Order: sequence, then structure tokens, then C-alpha cells
Amino acid sequence: MKRTSRDIRTANRYGVLRHIVAESPVSRQEVAAATGLSLATVANLVGELLELGMLVEVGYEDSDGGRPRGLVAVNSSGGALIGVDVAETYVHVELFDLALTVLARADQELRPERPEENHPTKVVAHIAAAVASVVGQAGIAPDRVLGVGISMPGQVDREGGVSVFAPNWDWHDVPLLRMLADHIPYPLYLDNPLRACTVAEQWFGAARGRGDAVVVNLGTGVGAGLALGGALHRGVSNSAGEWGHTTLILDGRQCHCGNRGCVETYVGAPGIMRNLRELSPDSPLLRADDQTATIEALGRGLADGDPVAAQVVRDTARYLGAGLADLINLLNPEVIVLSSWVAAALGEGLLAEVREAVAGRALRRPLASTEIVLCPIPSNPVSLGAATFVLEGSLASVGLKHRRPTAARTRGASS
Amino acid sequence: MKRTSRDIRTANRYGVLRHIVAESPVSRQEVAAATGLSLATVANLVGELLELGMLVEVGYEDSDGGRPRGLVAVNSSGGALIGVDVAETYVHVELFDLALTVLARADQELRPERPEENHPTKVVAHIAAAVASVVGQAGIAPDRVLGVGISMPGQVDREGGVSVFAPNWDWHDVPLLRMLADHIPYPLYLDNPLRACTVAEQWFGAARGRGDAVVVNLGTGVGAGLALGGALHRGVSNSAGEWGHTTLILDGRQCHCGNRGCVETYVGAPGIMRNLRELSPDSPLLRADDQTATIEALGRGLADGDPVAAQVVRDTARYLGAGLADLINLLNPEVIVLSSWVAAALGEGLLAEVREAVAGRALRRPLASTEIVLCPIPSNPVSLGAATFVLEGSLASVGLKHRRPTAARTRGASS
Repeated sequence: MKRTSRDIRTANRYGVLRHIVAESPVSRQEVAAATGLSLATVANLVGELLELGMLVEVGYEDSDGGRPRGLVAVNSSGGALIGVDVAETYVHVELFDLALTVLARADQELRPERPEENHPTKVVAHIAAAVASVVGQAGIAPDRVLGVGISMPGQVDREGGVSVFAPNWDWHDVPLLRMLADHIPYPLYLDNPLRACTVAEQWFGAARGRGDAVVVNLGTGVGAGLALGGALHRGVSNSAGEWGHTTLILDGRQCHCGNRGCVETYVGAPGIMRNLRELSPDSPLLRADDQTATIEALGRGLADGDPVAAQVVRDTARYLGAGLADLINLLNPEVIVLSSWVAAALGEGLLAEVREAVAGRALRRPLASTEIVLCPIPSNPVSLGAATFVLEGSLASVGLKHRRPTAARTRGASS
Repeated sequence: MKRTSRDIRTANRYGVLRHIVAESPVSRQEVAAATGLSLATVANLVGELLELGMLVEVGYEDSDGGRPRGLVAVNSSGGALIGVDVAETYVHVELFDLALTVLARADQELRPERPEENHPTKVVAHIAAAVASVVGQAGIAPDRVLGVGISMPGQVDREGGVSVFAPNWDWHDVPLLRMLADHIPYPLYLDNPLRACTVAEQWFGAARGRGDAVVVNLGTGVGAGLALGGALHRGVSNSAGEWGHTTLILDGRQCHCGNRGCVETYVGAPGIMRNLRELSPDSPLLRADDQTATIEALGRGLADGDPVAAQVVRDTARYLGAGLADLINLLNPEVIVLSSWVAAALGEGLLAEVREAVAGRALRRPLASTEIVLCPIPSNPVSLGAATFVLEGSLASVGLKHRRPTAARTRGASS
């Protein structure tokens, strides 16, 4: 966990490229002002990224009578990034250009009710087929694909490329990247949806430019991605963020993790269904065992002024608000982002109730500096974040290929 | 919160000096190996610290037939650091040499039952008197005092030098450093006991050399200092760590913060007294309203095999274990340190019960990488940590005085 000068250089590359991706075209001076780095450092890093073909020079802008400033922009055709969102019922794959515009999509259906179809070899085949499909659709030369990022639910060992535990399918220690490498000829990066969403928020969403941010994922499961000091906090064994399994009510509801009273049992989709069932067992909003349909019905009910929907959202917000107040008191973040499909379905109605519940519980000083917002990313943040793992991986490896600036320059000339 | 190259250089100075303080005398090669920094970087930083008089060359060691390696050590007489621990009932001040050996101590009694004595001007006078006393006792020339670090309970604005809220005395927005500057001619640094203890653990205790550590303060109040990625996580308004005011039982015990069910109400000293009272209202271990005497009686009872003491500690460990499991699941730290007087009084007996309770609750993967230990610092960690604020402040300001290496060299020659 020690930060070496190479880590710092990588972090600075992230900062520079993040700003350029968001603001293209932009001058080095503007990037320096926005990132707090010196102009010399920015010029140096921009030089590296130009040479790698990730940026291009796009002309000049006036600078109030001074020397015209050179503008740089993302070289959208400088490479392709592939993001894979593996979920219980589907594999969703997107191919992006370097400006993170989607060029192609592919989906493969998974059937959780048929366990033989969820065997690792089957899932690997689905991922490989979808990846081949997006490359074919986009008509991209294979040597322009910088890599494939895979978001796999559960606990992952990202360095070893292993799915340590996937609760959906009860996978244990599946060497996913080794299996995928037999089918996919691109560099592979593995992590989980929580970290994919957090990285997506850092690069393209509400955490961009914020020192400390927490990305709260509200889906079937619940987690909190921690973007602290501008970097993703992974913890010593890459398992930080299991906020869903922190205690809200000691000895409360039984959780599948074996404990009782976990946050997830009150604010995950099944928890919200239970909140509804306890309030109104015969409510027409309840759709048997269908989480998605129930949450969507609640969202519509909320919009239509249904009093039961409003009360369930208020009850849920009371639990969620207490949990978020804990995060605010403990971490004192600048922003909390509510992400994933439950947050999207319940939207502004949930947000308003949550803000009120948090205001009633968090300590005054940290509360005053924290904003709570909905995820502003309009597309699937998981596949976007997975593709961003590739971008980060490419930026991190620059220092390995180009040890010294001189070597980097010659490489460009000789290749 | 952006990390500039100056922040990095400061963090590297911390790392180098921390290792030298702990291992003096030591070679640059050993420091490089221990910190992960390059030998060139270490040589450069050691050069700066030699020039400031914080280190001295102390000879050579053999290197298995190679060129003998120069050894450096902390120059203990290179300066003095003063640490001030302000508590409800006392002001405790220690003067340290640069090896962090205590050269002098002074105490001033405060009487919380007499509000007129807790007026800011009175407390300021007590601090100033104790600081003057330790400088006099140690016979230190004033120009060798590098500064005074003050640990003030409650919420502090460290940059503005303001005690934002001190619950003991109901202080609000007291400009403490401005008031102290009229009486104390040294650079002043302000923060709170939680951060003092955490910094002490990072420099001299169980968090040294660990990537991610949590220092849990168990006293009258409860908090969790977060040392993440080798740096203190302060949060966006320097109020991170209010773990005592996270919810363990929604709608549980009333807390003085206005909420219910906060961790502090179960594992802070008054919470432990309540656990005892609920178990055995007439227990002779209960000492009326005296927290300190009760906790000490519990500690002795535990050592003597008293079944009531054992059960109260088990009940407390169940609450504490649930709270620590939350920290493990959320942050995935390498070590959790139990600090402050309650942890010291209940010691190994509490630790054993807590480890068992945590093992029953935390998720398998993060649990496997977390160690839980008692604070190993034999002296008062608060005044030690407060003195360390001065050390860190001095190291951080090196870059400000010595903009360029050439300027730094000339300064030494001309002064």
C-alpha cells in the first residue's frame, strides 16, 4: 500500500486524462489549474499521452493577447475499450472509443434457474462470444483493443484474476481470467460491480474532482465504494466497501451472510420488499418473488402519489438515512452518490426522503460538507466502469513500457 | 484533497523519518528497503533532514565486503517538541527531544464542576503555564523549540486553529490558537485526541509501516482514527472518525448527540457502566458516578476471575465486536488498534473477547487480513501524538522554506 513515485505518476495521469476526457478540447494551462499540478508536470504527462496516441493536438486558443495556447483533446479513435457487466441473469458487453462513446453492444442471457448453465465454462463462453461480437460489430482492428474489463459480482481477487466467491452461482475460487485468456486475445482486468460503479463516478460522474466520495450501490445487494483522496480505497485484500454487511440493528433481520441486522436486509431490493410486506401484506405493489417488478411498481406508485408507496419509501429512507449518516460521521465525505437500479427506479422521491432522514441523524459538522446525489451517468455505469479499468490499466503500465522519457521518444520513432 | 508533488515529498519525508526514529542508527539502504522508496530519493530526503539538524551521521557499517555504508540517526538534541493533552479534568504537557524521549512534564488541574474555571481564558492560561514550565525544567533554549501541538477534545478546525465544539465545557468556536499565540512564542498546531492517538500509532505504534489501520479510541467518548494508504484520513472538513456516533442499534440507547443507538452508548465508559448496571444493579464494582473507578474495578475483577466482571466485559465485547466487524467489512484494514484508557484498563481480557466476537461477525475475506491489537505505546499516546503534529508540521514546511535544492544549500551556509 505504499505509494511509490510510479503510483503518484499514475495517479497524476488519471487526473490529467479525467479532466481532458470531460472538457476536451482543453489547454495544458486549464488542466494544470483544474488538477493542481504544475504546468511542467501537466505538459510532461500530456506529452506521454500524445505519444501513446490517446490524445491529439487540435489547434490553438487565444489567451487574451498572450501567446496562443495549444489545445489537446482525447483521440477517440486512438484505441477501443471493452466493458463487461456480468450479472445474475445476463452478460452485457459494450465497446467504447477512447472518448468513452459506445460503439457496439452485445447481450447474452443467463438463466439462474438452470444451474448447469451457470457453470464457469458456460459463463466464460458467453463473455467470449459477446466480446467477439462487439469487436466484429464495431469493425475494430484487434491491435487497437486496449483490453477488456470484467465486472464480476461478489468477492474477486483482482490481481490473481480469480472470482473468490460469487454468491449468485455459489462459485468459489474460479480462475476466471485464466479461463478467459484462452478465448480472448486482449489484456484482461477483473473487479466487481461496486468498484466499477465507483471508478465510473470518479471518471465521468459525481465523484469527479471531489477529494472524498462514497458511491452507494443500491441493488439486490448493497455496498459502498470509497473514493478517498482521489483514489479508490480497496483495503488490504481488495474487499473494502462491504457496507451492506455492517450492522444497523444488532440482532435484527437475518442476512444471508450469516449475521443479523445488516444494512442490506433493510435497503437492498429484497429488504425493501419486506418493508412493503410488513406495512401492507396484500399491497398490489408486491409482485410475488419479482424484485425488479416490485421496485418498479414502487417507483411508479411514488410518482403517482400512492400513499403505501410513499410510506414504504419513507420507511426505507429512514433505514438508509441512518446508514448514510454513519458513513458521513465516519468518513466525512464531500459527496455520496446513490447508484444502481434501485436508486434509479425510486429516484428523486427516495432522494428527498433520504436527505431528510440523514439531516435528522448525522453530526452537524460533517453533514454541512456532504452532498447526497443520484448517479448522473446516463448509461450503464457498470460496463462503463469496467471499461475504465482498462483505461486505468493502460495508464498504469505506461511507466513500465516507457522507463525513461528518451526511451519513450525512440519507441515512437522506431515502431 | 488533491495530492501535489509537495504532498508526496512530505509523505515520503514522514516515511523516512518514521523508519529512522524507530531503527536508529540505520543505513540509507535499509531505509530504502523498508519504505519502498528508491535509494536516490532516500539519500535526497536524508540529506534534507541532516541539513535541518534533525538527523546526524553516526559512522559506518560493514556491508559484506562491499563499501561500508554510512549510518544516520535521529539527532535527539536537534530540537524540542511539546505535546499538550487537554482533557476534562487536566492539562498534561510533555516536552520531548527529537528521538521522542520525554525530557520534562507538567500538569495543571481543571475542575469541571466549577464552570468559571473552564472559561477559555482560564484554560489558555493553564496551557501557557504548563508549556513555560516544561521549557524551564528542560533548560531548552527557546529557539530550539520546534513548536507546540495541542490535542483538544471535540471538533476542531485545525487550519483555523479553532475549537469548534468542546462538549466537556460547551465551548463553541473558540479561537484557541489565536488566544494561545499571545502567551506562547512557538509555532502552534491544533487537533483532537483521536487524531493525536492515530498519528502516535502511525509513527511509534502498531500502525507503523501498515498500509491501512484503524485506531479505535475507547474512553468516555469513542472514535476511530483512520490511517489509510499510510496517511491520516481527515475527511473534507477534518471531522472523519466519529465512529462512536454510528448506529449499532437503530432506536437503541439515547446518546448525548441527540440520536439513539450510537456505538458510544454501548462501549464508551458510561455505556459500559450501564451494561454493568443492567446486568447487576447492586454490583460492588459500580462506583456511583465515577467512570474511572468503575472501569478500573472491572479491570481488576476481570483479572481476579470475578464472574460479573467477566460477563460485563463479554457483553461489552459483543457490542464492540459488532462495531469492529463493521469497520473491517467497510474498510478492510490491516490492523485495528484498541487505544485509550478503557482499552488499557480492560486489557487482554477485553481483547480476547473482542477477537472472538469479531470472528463471529466479520466477513471471511476481510477478517482473514485484519489483526486486532492493544495500543503498544507505553506512555501517554495523546501528548506523544500532539508532539508528533509538530514533527509533521516541521517536515511539511521544509518544502516551503527550501523551494529549490540550491536555495536549501545556500540557506544552511548563510544562517
